[in-house]
Amino acid sequence: MAMTGSTAPLAPHPDRLLPTDPSVRSIARRLYRHVRELPILSPHGHVDPRLFVEDAAFPDPATLLVTKDHYVTRILHAAGFSLDELGVGRDDLTEAESRSIWRALCSRWDVLRGTPSRYWLESELSEIFGVEQRPSAATADAIHDRIADCLAKDEFRPRALFQSFGVEVLATTDDPADDLSAHRSLREDPTWTGRVIPTFRPDRYLEAGRPGWVEAVDRLGEVAGIDTGDYTGYVRALEERRRRFVELGATSADHSHFDVRTDPLDPGEAERIYRAARADAATPEETTALRRHMLLEMARMSTEDGLVMTLHPGVRRNHHTPTFQAHGSDTGHDIPVRAEFTEALRPLLERYGTHPNLHLVLFTLDETTFSREIAPLAGFYPSVYAGAPWWFLDAPEAVRRFRGAVTETAGFTRTSGFIDDTRAFCSIPARHDMSRRLDSGYLAGLVAEHRLAEDEAAEVAVELCTTIPRGVFKL
Amino acid sequence: MAMTGSTAPLAPHPDRLLPTDPSVRSIARRLYRHVRELPILSPHGHVDPRLFVEDAAFPDPATLLVTKDHYVTRILHAAGFSLDELGVGRDDLTEAESRSIWRALCSRWDVLRGTPSRYWLESELSEIFGVEQRPSAATADAIHDRIADCLAKDEFRPRALFQSFGVEVLATTDDPADDLSAHRSLREDPTWTGRVIPTFRPDRYLEAGRPGWVEAVDRLGEVAGIDTGDYTGYVRALEERRRRFVELGATSADHSHFDVRTDPLDPGEAERIYRAARADAATPEETTALRRHMLLEMARMSTEDGLVMTLHPGVRRNHHTPTFQAHGSDTGHDIPVRAEFTEALRPLLERYGTHPNLHLVLFTLDETTFSREIAPLAGFYPSVYAGAPWWFLDAPEAVRRFRGAVTETAGFTRTSGFIDDTRAFCSIPARHDMSRRLDSGYLAGLVAEHRLAEDEAAEVAVELCTTIPRGVFKL
Amino acid sequence: MAMTGSTAPLAPHPDRLLPTDPSVRSIARRLYRHVRELPILSPHGHVDPRLFVEDAAFPDPATLLVTKDHYVTRILHAAGFSLDELGVGRDDLTEAESRSIWRALCSRWDVLRGTPSRYWLESELSEIFGVEQRPSAATADAIHDRIADCLAKDEFRPRALFQSFGVEVLATTDDPADDLSAHRSLREDPTWTGRVIPTFRPDRYLEAGRPGWVEAVDRLGEVAGIDTGDYTGYVRALEERRRRFVELGATSADHSHFDVRTDPLDPGEAERIYRAARADAATPEETTALRRHMLLEMARMSTEDGLVMTLHPGVRRNHHTPTFQAHGSDTGHDIPVRAEFTEALRPLLERYGTHPNLHLVLFTLDETTFSREIAPLAGFYPSVYAGAPWWFLDAPEAVRRFRGAVTETAGFTRTSGFIDDTRAFCSIPARHDMSRRLDSGYLAGLVAEHRLAEDEAAEVAVELCTTIPRGVFKL
Repeated sequence: MAMTGSTAPLAPHPDRLLPTDPSVRSIARRLYRHVRELPILSPHGHVDPRLFVEDAAFPDPATLLVTKDHYVTRILHAAGFSLDELGVGRDDLTEAESRSIWRALCSRWDVLRGTPSRYWLESELSEIFGVEQRPSAATADAIHDRIADCLAKDEFRPRALFQSFGVEVLATTDDPADDLSAHRSLREDPTWTGRVIPTFRPDRYLEAGRPGWVEAVDRLGEVAGIDTGDYTGYVRALEERRRRFVELGATSADHSHFDVRTDPLDPGEAERIYRAARADAATPEETTALRRHMLLEMARMSTEDGLVMTLHPGVRRNHHTPTFQAHGSDTGHDIPVRAEFTEALRPLLERYGTHPNLHLVLFTLDETTFSREIAPLAGFYPSVYAGAPWWFLDAPEAVRRFRGAVTETAGFTRTSGFIDDTRAFCSIPARHDMSRRLDSGYLAGLVAEHRLAEDEAAEVAVELCTTIPRGVFKL
Repeated sequence: MAMTGSTAPLAPHPDRLLPTDPSVRSIARRLYRHVRELPILSPHGHVDPRLFVEDAAFPDPATLLVTKDHYVTRILHAAGFSLDELGVGRDDLTEAESRSIWRALCSRWDVLRGTPSRYWLESELSEIFGVEQRPSAATADAIHDRIADCLAKDEFRPRALFQSFGVEVLATTDDPADDLSAHRSLREDPTWTGRVIPTFRPDRYLEAGRPGWVEAVDRLGEVAGIDTGDYTGYVRALEERRRRFVELGATSADHSHFDVRTDPLDPGEAERIYRAARADAATPEETTALRRHMLLEMARMSTEDGLVMTLHPGVRRNHHTPTFQAHGSDTGHDIPVRAEFTEALRPLLERYGTHPNLHLVLFTLDETTFSREIAPLAGFYPSVYAGAPWWFLDAPEAVRRFRGAVTETAGFTRTSGFIDDTRAFCSIPARHDMSRRLDSGYLAGLVAEHRLAEDEAAEVAVELCTTIPRGVFKL
Repeated sequence: MAMTGSTAPLAPHPDRLLPTDPSVRSIARRLYRHVRELPILSPHGHVDPRLFVEDAAFPDPATLLVTKDHYVTRILHAAGFSLDELGVGRDDLTEAESRSIWRALCSRWDVLRGTPSRYWLESELSEIFGVEQRPSAATADAIHDRIADCLAKDEFRPRALFQSFGVEVLATTDDPADDLSAHRSLREDPTWTGRVIPTFRPDRYLEAGRPGWVEAVDRLGEVAGIDTGDYTGYVRALEERRRRFVELGATSADHSHFDVRTDPLDPGEAERIYRAARADAATPEETTALRRHMLLEMARMSTEDGLVMTLHPGVRRNHHTPTFQAHGSDTGHDIPVRAEFTEALRPLLERYGTHPNLHLVLFTLDETTFSREIAPLAGFYPSVYAGAPWWFLDAPEAVRRFRGAVTETAGFTRTSGFIDDTRAFCSIPARHDMSRRLDSGYLAGLVAEHRLAEDEAAEVAVELCTTIPRGVFKL
């Protein structure tokens, strides 16, 4: 039965990820047919907007599919490759380097078995690039050639792919001090009709204990045209930048801190800590207190300017300092920790939990919070939504566990709809398609167990790709 | 395929919740047949005993099925209805109000998709009230009329339903200072043959830090005829009230605090804190210490008077203070937190864990404790039982996760059997039936995987509805 | 359908534990066929090596299958038997006692329903001893006779069973001060060809706060021939004993403390605490700090001598002190607690996480850490492996949850392969077979969902029993 690497086919099955029980699968197929071709709403991700301004050909297969995807490089790193060998952090690979990195991936195709990265890559290779052989040491070069040939063609440029992928809205993630020139260019470009919108991501400006914070808030002040020398100016500068993001189409502000505590400080104390932090004289406890207070302030601003607040907490970033020092952040060693929402968000929800302007979407890497905290919160507060499974949990079985943990307490309408959260542009269709298959399968299970009528299940399947994310993220 | 609200049928399927695989389903059907008609033992719940003393007709559909069921009102609240609109806390709805609340529910029938509340309501509408149309804005009035017509009939009065539901024992939950007159009336009523028993629930008397505690223990002393001015009297008054509960048929004492720590205080320290608390001079740490000590005392009393001790910890009650102030407690915003049993119960189990009189039933809203703590404890201590999934977890997939997490370590005989824990009287048959279907399905899976013979599975299915709860709760 | 105990057959089904869906089951059967007969690698367990030195007949059925297996005695204890009645701690049962204990087990065969102990015992009774009747009060004596008859035969002696079980490598667990004479005897015995290797388990020498620690390190010094009067000697003595273990074939060092924190002390502080501990003058905080520092030291030694480091944390040992006092440790009341790896192991992984000599295998009893911490760590660090489900989690549904939680982040190659961790020698084949069935079933699910080709699944199934454990444990 074993096939050599060079003869094994690559042919994603039309029924992949659907339930295996034949009677359930046939229901799932019918549900999936309703959503398969729907346009893509991508309300949270990390694609660079300049991609569409420049619309240049993608450089090479390794840069496009390997070196920038820390989901893939971390697994190859665990398998023994150094991040240098994998070109991590490089933007200027030679053809030989690209080929060598691509070979590394194909030669250890086995270590990706059972992972979503493998699933997405297979879909991409087959459906975007027409690859028909399973990657292996023997087929690596041929596949590299095929992708490189594709990338040289106009229909593989970013704008063409945006269209052929069926993307309706794509939200990027942007620094508050970014001048948003890429977003402005796209809005002003009469030849571009896609909707690409910025997202306000102020993490580094709220973490007064991190190196470079003073320079960052100074620069924020310059961009905003407001003196951030005191706390009042700092808050006003953040408000001003949010306003500018809203003008350029932003609908969300995204926050990713170690925890989501939102304990208020009185204004004098906030001012005092802010000044101390600027003088590098604040303790870690104080800068943490300021950050927690500022998260509450962000919620207050959301009630005023309407930006949806998305929370992605609970990760020890840059776990391995030597790797961070050599290669920087987002290099595969951000490791989750326990999360807590019930107590942490109570100050925020006491104040703003029933405010009509607030949408608060809770993401987690700690699955225990799905049934224990997130679903109960989303099942009472009109402002709270259970965010779709994210990062390590954006994978078939984890998605099923999410639906299993959340639905019984919060139903479907209190969940966010899918987010792809990716910097791997070419994986976007495969990721959304995966989500649609899994939701179709989950709903088919409810139908097969006689917990939901099929017409209702079909309605939910469609809503999860349309009205629900549109409503939650105010698209 | 979509049906309009007015034509879609409501017809719970005879195989609902059974496994979808045909070979497993047929085993499950056979097992379910053994238990389907067994009488209902309800050892823990919140039905008001006066219902059966007065035996008055239920007032109206909204009061019966919506306003008092915080499982339902919280989801409608999340969907945008105010609790005022839903009549929460009201006992005197006009017909127009009942109809309006009922319409709110039916018009957002979609938000309940996938929830157990929807499942129970469908069973109740169909099986108790004979409703044959799916609730929707279009069918709301007709269904309201149908239920109202039923409620006017004698066979829908509480006593008649108690009988037609097949309830054999129903435990209520009662305040230690309650005079138990309703329970006494029922015992003395020669026309009433049902078994309705009180449960001793002393939470507020053990929380010296809560507002109104001094008045509460004073009143407890009056009812008990024992001066609670000092710690000794306080303990004796509790013992006396327990004795009185036992006399009136109680078999359990129920405890729901934030945690289940049971650290002993020496008597002098307990006395000192008790006096300080009465003078409003105890710190939060001290009143917490007293509560933990008193939980240990409750266990000691259980070894003496035999009351089963049930623990329901780990909830941040009244999470949203503005809602609590407007509508009181039990209004849908009690949110779970992490729970811990291993260390917390160690002092209690060191002392009484092998005492023949102690039955300690551990409930949790933190599913992580099922396999990690509760099953290992129940798998060693003869006094400890794993309580059935409760509250947010009393739902099909959560119940399956419970069996999956507990059985392999503790088997079936160390679990409690089902409790419905409900104040929604009409949902009792649907809840117990749900549990029987799920246990039949779980057992069928063991049979289909050749882990258990079918004759043994049938024995377990029956025991879980009969000898097991009877033994655990001393019914 | 109910069968009396004396007529019900015992006949483990050839398809047991395979998925119930017929199409998935047929794939699983084909995969299982590839691994069913492979030799057993047992890299972690608690079998006594003297068993094979002496090669004496096993004494009696109860001693062999009940009294030493705390998985079984704890469940019978929960069911009401005292540990005395079960012969716990006894090594000299009379025939009458063995028969009485055996009857206790058979008469409460029902309390084991759904547990892996029941599953293993059924396999052992049927496949090793040829029992054909289901255990019950009525069949207890006949089964006891049958087993006793077997034990009298040569082919049921330890060496013969080792061979007929197909064990290729068996690692024992040994005290650093053990003279390893049993291991030496086996290596020098020309009539013995099996591979039985020691494992270095230094827990008690690292816990300076435990009673008897000073005597233990003194004895360690004597055995090592190095004065452990000061910290330097203590470290050197540990290094020396590890060296000796390596010489006698050890490939692993095993560590089971309450937590896995690895905070370094500077050498002066370590020395100071070490001296204080020897004088019984160290605080609990200090001895804990020393233990955490020493765990880091163990990792350092592993980078030097290559011993694989296995961690088994997160258990409150001897939860019930009265039982501990009467019967000693390992008597069924070790109860898990929450575990934490991300922060705890950071100091270790910062230093040694990419060291080519380090293999660090993380086991847990807290399933929440599988997807949240262990898989992300194993999915980046080339040194880290996700250990197979252990102890309470070594059971069919828990194993499925493990694969479901770990695979999507870390694939298969970052997991350890199965360990049986048992002192119940006769359960080894049943345990490994269980694991092979479950992995075949899990892989079959991936194939049926079109996530993995069947030739690849077959390769994984075989690797999980061969190259993977061989590589992870350096066998």
